[in-house]
Amino acid sequence: MNPGRAIADLRDLHRLTGGLDGARRVAWTDEWERARQFLLDRLEELPVTVERDAAGNLWALLEGDSDEIVAIGSHVDSVPSGGWLDGTLGVFGALEALRAVAAEGRPARCVALVDWADEEGARFGRSLLGSSAFAGTLDLQAAAKLTDADGVALPDAVAAHGVDFDAMGGAGEGRREQLAAYLELHIEQGPVLEADGLACGAVLGTFGVERWKAVFTGRAGHAGSTPMDRRADAGVAAARAIVALQAVAREHGGVGTAGRADFAPGIVTAVPGRAELLVDQRHLEPAALAAMRAGAEQAFAGAASEEGCDFAAEPIWRIDPVPFHEGLVGAAAEACAEQAGAERRLPSGALHDASELAGVCPTTMVFSSSIGGVSHSPREDTAEGDLERAIAAYGALVRRVVAEGVP
Amino acid sequence: MNPGRAIADLRDLHRLTGGLDGARRVAWTDEWERARQFLLDRLEELPVTVERDAAGNLWALLEGDSDEIVAIGSHVDSVPSGGWLDGTLGVFGALEALRAVAAEGRPARCVALVDWADEEGARFGRSLLGSSAFAGTLDLQAAAKLTDADGVALPDAVAAHGVDFDAMGGAGEGRREQLAAYLELHIEQGPVLEADGLACGAVLGTFGVERWKAVFTGRAGHAGSTPMDRRADAGVAAARAIVALQAVAREHGGVGTAGRADFAPGIVTAVPGRAELLVDQRHLEPAALAAMRAGAEQAFAGAASEEGCDFAAEPIWRIDPVPFHEGLVGAAAEACAEQAGAERRLPSGALHDASELAGVCPTTMVFSSSIGGVSHSPREDTAEGDLERAIAAYGALVRRVVAEGVP
Repeated sequence: MNPGRAIADLRDLHRLTGGLDGARRVAWTDEWERARQFLLDRLEELPVTVERDAAGNLWALLEGDSDEIVAIGSHVDSVPSGGWLDGTLGVFGALEALRAVAAEGRPARCVALVDWADEEGARFGRSLLGSSAFAGTLDLQAAAKLTDADGVALPDAVAAHGVDFDAMGGAGEGRREQLAAYLELHIEQGPVLEADGLACGAVLGTFGVERWKAVFTGRAGHAGSTPMDRRADAGVAAARAIVALQAVAREHGGVGTAGRADFAPGIVTAVPGRAELLVDQRHLEPAALAAMRAGAEQAFAGAASEEGCDFAAEPIWRIDPVPFHEGLVGAAAEACAEQAGAERRLPSGALHDASELAGVCPTTMVFSSSIGGVSHSPREDTAEGDLERAIAAYGALVRRVVAEGVP
Repeated sequence: MNPGRAIADLRDLHRLTGGLDGARRVAWTDEWERARQFLLDRLEELPVTVERDAAGNLWALLEGDSDEIVAIGSHVDSVPSGGWLDGTLGVFGALEALRAVAAEGRPARCVALVDWADEEGARFGRSLLGSSAFAGTLDLQAAAKLTDADGVALPDAVAAHGVDFDAMGGAGEGRREQLAAYLELHIEQGPVLEADGLACGAVLGTFGVERWKAVFTGRAGHAGSTPMDRRADAGVAAARAIVALQAVAREHGGVGTAGRADFAPGIVTAVPGRAELLVDQRHLEPAALAAMRAGAEQAFAGAASEEGCDFAAEPIWRIDPVPFHEGLVGAAAEACAEQAGAERRLPSGALHDASELAGVCPTTMVFSSSIGGVSHSPREDTAEGDLERAIAAYGALVRRVVAEGVP
């Protein structure tokens, strides 16, 4: 393992498809193809078979003694003005692990490096596109209706990159059963490891998400001529709800966020007659997530009632928590502890391709630390030493699972 | 006094310059001139001298035994899609009082009906334009720079209606000293009288206003990957502040409103790193208003600190409270009690031309009830019986002050 070589690859790729304004490898664009070509050029030095599956996911297969495949990888696509490590760290960390395995001769199991297509969903709003197609969970009818900001339909965009949209659902056929494990390295995109002074840690799974809109309806009025005891101020109701959302998250050990608040009429001289909040709640445990959702709705209804307002919740999107494989999490934790000096297991607040793969085969992830937890930004970064240790830990995990199988 | 005649005038005017989409008598437009012509046509039946002063205010003077002038009136201009009674009730209520006084022969004092020009400031954003020019408080340099949405400058717009902008400051010269009193009838634009089941009430004065922006700065982060104990959520800080703003207003007996909240980046997947609130606080007592402002800032700083955020207050606009003349308020209260069945004195949450005139001469107002407190809307209305009683009360007040002088 030579983590420095992976970091050099990452820097070269960033010079090629990024810069001061951040990464620009949005899926289904020329820049994204350029990044994939950069990967393909490096794969040429290895004894691997390269192919694209029906969903546009890029596979590089190193044959092993058994038919079992240990899949490793992440995604090279980025959001616009994205970070240089988001996704790419996992791809080039996996490439370095693949180099190390290949250098030791024919492995006990096959190893497949995968670059999942369109993890970010930056152009069409559907994240995990390629990995969900592979996993067999992609709703093709819904995806067919997606268009980008210019009105281009998703099926046309993927066709321009050699993917037959109608065939995407078959991407995993014949291969899903072969996967013995999926292992992904990713930047944390959160402040936990940095705060603990750790280079890397093992990921327990990805949070389930309850995303909904809270609507408070009161009575608009003149800010000067409506006495306090005659108000039904939807803004105050929403404010009480935001405070309660925080308390509910703390009570259950999850997270809860009101990322946006809209008051109407929204002028300085009017008591808000209507207020909307965008709410996002996450937890690793299904029961706790359900309790958080119920607790928030109850608290919001109470906040509305206290201000003489009505409350309604409108669902936006939800997903169940995805726990990772206990044995693999333990192996990842050991590999990370070896490099970081202490063991740390943490949940992932964001979704990853691993969330889809966890439904296919035993799965886990390794997180590298993330400076300030900054994500989806040109300022995303990880200390160089932490990067080296995270890549080394991931490589050790891959080599162990390839050699010994899933613990 | 024939209140029904005033109401008929109001309905005729609304047919002429309003309709289902509300009043459209924006100052310095043809519709506004049409409304003024409607008033001039009715003034022709009375023994009055009509003139426009240098600020475009319309005066109709009925001579009396003494040189003292009791000024009565309000404004015919409206906001776009405005209410049918806002301003016009005071003008045509005053017209009816003028008719009643004139019908009784030469009065003890002169009576002047005034239609103040551009009370609303709907086109150029400067309310109380004509009355402040008359009172000598208009900042001409600032007003000269105002433009409407089409880029037309205020000086050009008033010139198109016969007003020499540079001479506006002299509007009150020679006349201010003659005014013995100013009496204005207006729709309450608030829910207080309706809630008390009263047709009308006496106005104590107009609230002072502290209008400012509250800025909370925290740390943006991913809504999933930032644990609760690692957040500096500016949205939660702002929410705590909104709740505190309400408590401060209640504590001091004033009003406090956060009419708008803006979270940044303002997306469902991000912890707000910045939050701005537009704050409006009002009170009739200068000391209490100052205490409310200080109390809110202290509470906001505390809310910010509790969430690990910074807080800054940016001033937008302020005005001191304007208390009305005690003797006149008492006389107005007696006249209202006679009509409404019970006495009620209330502050005005909104500013009025009377706020400017209070600096010139003893002043008070009569409020009519306002259905639901709805204002600046086509749905603004007052129950017909309440309108009649409010006009009658105002007429009685005018006749008393004209006959007996300021109590």
